[in-house]
Amino acid sequence: MITLAVDCMGGDHGPGVTLPACRHFLEQHPDAELLLVGLPASLAAFTHERARMVAATEVVSMDDSIEVALRRKKDSSMRVAIAQVKSGAAQAAVSAGNTGALMAIARYLLKTLDGIDRPAIAGQIPNAKGAATTVLDLGANVDCTAEHLLQFAVMGSALVSVLSDNESPTVGLLNIGEEAIKGNDIIKQAGELLRTAAGLGDLNFYGNVEGNDIFKGTTDIVVCDGFVGNVALKTSEGLATMMGNFIKLEFSRNFLTKIAAGAAYPVLKAIKSRMDHRRYNGAALLGLRGLVFKSHGSADAFAFGQALSRAYDAAKHNLLDRVQARIAHAAPLLVSAQPIAEPVMAAPIL
Amino acid sequence: MITLAVDCMGGDHGPGVTLPACRHFLEQHPDAELLLVGLPASLAAFTHERARMVAATEVVSMDDSIEVALRRKKDSSMRVAIAQVKSGAAQAAVSAGNTGALMAIARYLLKTLDGIDRPAIAGQIPNAKGAATTVLDLGANVDCTAEHLLQFAVMGSALVSVLSDNESPTVGLLNIGEEAIKGNDIIKQAGELLRTAAGLGDLNFYGNVEGNDIFKGTTDIVVCDGFVGNVALKTSEGLATMMGNFIKLEFSRNFLTKIAAGAAYPVLKAIKSRMDHRRYNGAALLGLRGLVFKSHGSADAFAFGQALSRAYDAAKHNLLDRVQARIAHAAPLLVSAQPIAEPVMAAPIL
Repeated sequence: MITLAVDCMGGDHGPGVTLPACRHFLEQHPDAELLLVGLPASLAAFTHERARMVAATEVVSMDDSIEVALRRKKDSSMRVAIAQVKSGAAQAAVSAGNTGALMAIARYLLKTLDGIDRPAIAGQIPNAKGAATTVLDLGANVDCTAEHLLQFAVMGSALVSVLSDNESPTVGLLNIGEEAIKGNDIIKQAGELLRTAAGLGDLNFYGNVEGNDIFKGTTDIVVCDGFVGNVALKTSEGLATMMGNFIKLEFSRNFLTKIAAGAAYPVLKAIKSRMDHRRYNGAALLGLRGLVFKSHGSADAFAFGQALSRAYDAAKHNLLDRVQARIAHAAPLLVSAQPIAEPVMAAPIL
Repeated sequence: MITLAVDCMGGDHGPGVTLPACRHFLEQHPDAELLLVGLPASLAAFTHERARMVAATEVVSMDDSIEVALRRKKDSSMRVAIAQVKSGAAQAAVSAGNTGALMAIARYLLKTLDGIDRPAIAGQIPNAKGAATTVLDLGANVDCTAEHLLQFAVMGSALVSVLSDNESPTVGLLNIGEEAIKGNDIIKQAGELLRTAAGLGDLNFYGNVEGNDIFKGTTDIVVCDGFVGNVALKTSEGLATMMGNFIKLEFSRNFLTKIAAGAAYPVLKAIKSRMDHRRYNGAALLGLRGLVFKSHGSADAFAFGQALSRAYDAAKHNLLDRVQARIAHAAPLLVSAQPIAEPVMAAPIL
């Protein structure tokens, strides 16, 4: 039996989305049970033989600061859900709440794995191959050393090997191409570390990739710092939204274009389905002593269900053990990571 | 009369694209003349009363290193074109060649403006408002201080005010939003500098923006370091290509979808036109004592013509003076920029 703890209050829609998603998930996964965490009044109407309510008295809002979420709301649904993982009552927690708060609480309660300085957020971005490219970090760490990037690569490899039938997923290091007037020292060092790690069998390093390779699907995994990863993700969301709106606008411009839209409807639907990022909802918080998955805040029931499924798959296939094993194997390289106290600016180059 | 120096050999297609674009440009701009720079044999067939050939004996290839382009090919068409600006024979140079080489040669020959440590590459990205967002830096500087970002903001403001009817374009500072577990010190400092500059009337600072705001058109200008800017640009190109291919694929899937494509043809054409990045081809190399514009290497004649037009507009409206005036006005803030070590390739710069 796989048990997931669900923060039912998180996200833009809260129980209105999370509860229907939970019901559908339970129907699809007969060997799963859910701990539904939230305000009792909000969850009272939900009953299922494999669901149990765990009460929380507070809710972390989307704009709560990390400080507030971590220190003032100690009985939040988000925190109680993660505490279920900490206590062993659940194998993974899922939340659509505030990412910053989720990472901070998860890190505080669960702590990081040996050999990992910084947890990272690993998400999937649909690519031209009809699959998805796993990109990390998507925003947990705005400044990274070469060793952090190596840690991300090792953790990402564990994640992808667990969630897909690919024991040796390829890793690309996000860089800028010929446009670079000069290289970035951190990236160059990371490239060397990754090559060494590949030589030792710790991962399958492809080499440098550029932004467009994320969508080409050149590699299974793309590694970058959280600032760059977050900008790449948000920029892509912005472009996809704009293109989607252009398509809608042009097809609804007048009577004739509306007829064209009718004729093209099955095709437009197929295109939309190909681009449906909801299928890939559910980012993994990697590097913690417990499994936590983050759903997009705006997720609908279908998307939230995907995040539940990813958490289920990760738990079922022992992602935590796999990450730990890979980290242990790569330990000789990882220990060279200098402990750094707090975010420092990227080192002055030359 | 506006005189542009054109590196006719640059880009993926060389004279096959640049010469037709030059002819069309001359027809559209009766007060312009062109210095066509390249191998005489390649340009011999082109004659126009307002075009003059300037011979060069070498060509910088797309994969030449900066070292090779700068030190070994001293009679390249790229370098000779920029030399025309240096000597005053032309008001601006345009090249579709290797970006790194172009920036290095331009910087070496033209030097930077007083108050500017680092030239930047400013490009336009089409946005949802039917206009374009000017983004800089797109890849010239992989590590930037807060002061560099301020310099970019001032230069970008001058560029946009010259090329559009907007004396006070808004500036956004690219940052990551709520996802940020912790802030990035450089960005925070840059935000403070930009607010101070806005208070002094040097620019119109909107505040932080995220990746999706580039496409929303939230601000006229988005400022970021060259690593982040390049990744955002390449990621967007990758996504746009993927979406375009999906649309083509789904509409050509079978007989019925091809009929649908026929019915939807005018709409698809309108959508394509909206997304046509060729319209915005022509990135400005800002911060130099002379105007240099960079066309995309894969530009066709239409796109290369757009780059020529942008260079023409910039020259006609005295972009250089406008940048200098704005930089001078902002000088009290800019002088606080700490001198930093030169880029790796640095020839005797300054």
